[in-house]
Amino acid sequence: MAKVKIAVIVGSNRRGSVNGKRAQALARLGENRLAFKFVLIGDLPLYNQDLEGELPKSVVRFKSEIATADALLFVTPEHNRSIPALLKNAIDWGARPYGQNSWSGKPAAITGTSPGAIGAVHSCTCDRFWEAWVCSSWVGKPTSPLSPAWWIRMG
Amino acid sequence: MAKVKIAVIVGSNRRGSVNGKRAQALARLGENRLAFKFVLIGDLPLYNQDLEGELPKSVVRFKSEIATADALLFVTPEHNRSIPALLKNAIDWGARPYGQNSWSGKPAAITGTSPGAIGAVHSCTCDRFWEAWVCSSWVGKPTSPLSPAWWIRMG
Repeated sequence: MAKVKIAVIVGSNRRGSVNGKRAQALARLGENRLAFKFVLIGDLPLYNQDLEGELPKSVVRFKSEIATADALLFVTPEHNRSIPALLKNAIDWGARPYGQNSWSGKPAAITGTSPGAIGAVHSCTCDRFWEAWVCSSWVGKPTSPLSPAWWIRMG
Repeated sequence: MAKVKIAVIVGSNRRGSVNGKRAQALARLGENRLAFKFVLIGDLPLYNQDLEGELPKSVVRFKSEIATADALLFVTPEHNRSIPALLKNAIDWGARPYGQNSWSGKPAAITGTSPGAIGAVHSCTCDRFWEAWVCSSWVGKPTSPLSPAWWIRMG
């Protein structure tokens, strides 16, 4: 049976990112049953509706990689009690143009870590777009030793 | 008496942005008493801690313009129930590097509009970083005909 394809999106592009390492570790843990593909988001331009007329190549590539995934894994730090701009930018591009929401119907897991004691809990749980718009339902709330992991189905 | 200096930050870089027009209109309304300066954020690179060693020129310029302002006016749409990546990126750069938070102590107003019936209410009110980190206190909650406007003091 073909492995389930997981698109991995890391919310940090810092060299040596602990979330990047965490994502790599998670992928190794699951590689016998799942096929992980790390999706680049650092080359996406800042979202601007004016760019929707002819989507930038990086956006087309990004949305194509999301489209071919069976499920999503977000691994992200938090910046100022929310997801980093890097990840918000990917979320916004994924949801556009109107009618071409790449996230629709995708099961997704969100997890993350940071040097702080509560990990990246705000990134994982608190953003309105997770709660109200991108997701249609929460499908589970497992936890991990490093920080909470939350499972959702994207709207 | 010198006019109070207001740095205006618009959360959209779309040509013809309704929030850009709203910001221009607000500036015209207040120009007799206040000196408005529109601060460019579209040229900021996506935040990456690796760039903090030698801050990009656009970041230095941005933080310098915030530093010279007496107060801030954010005028923003909402994307996916939160502020646009464009504005989140500016917020994150403003708060960094550690110990050089450009937002500290600045009185700020947040407002915005969108074609939807509830304006940009989620951008203006709901983000954790407004509530919990960037702001030290809410100093008032006036409303406007187009959408709520909220006044805060940045942390």
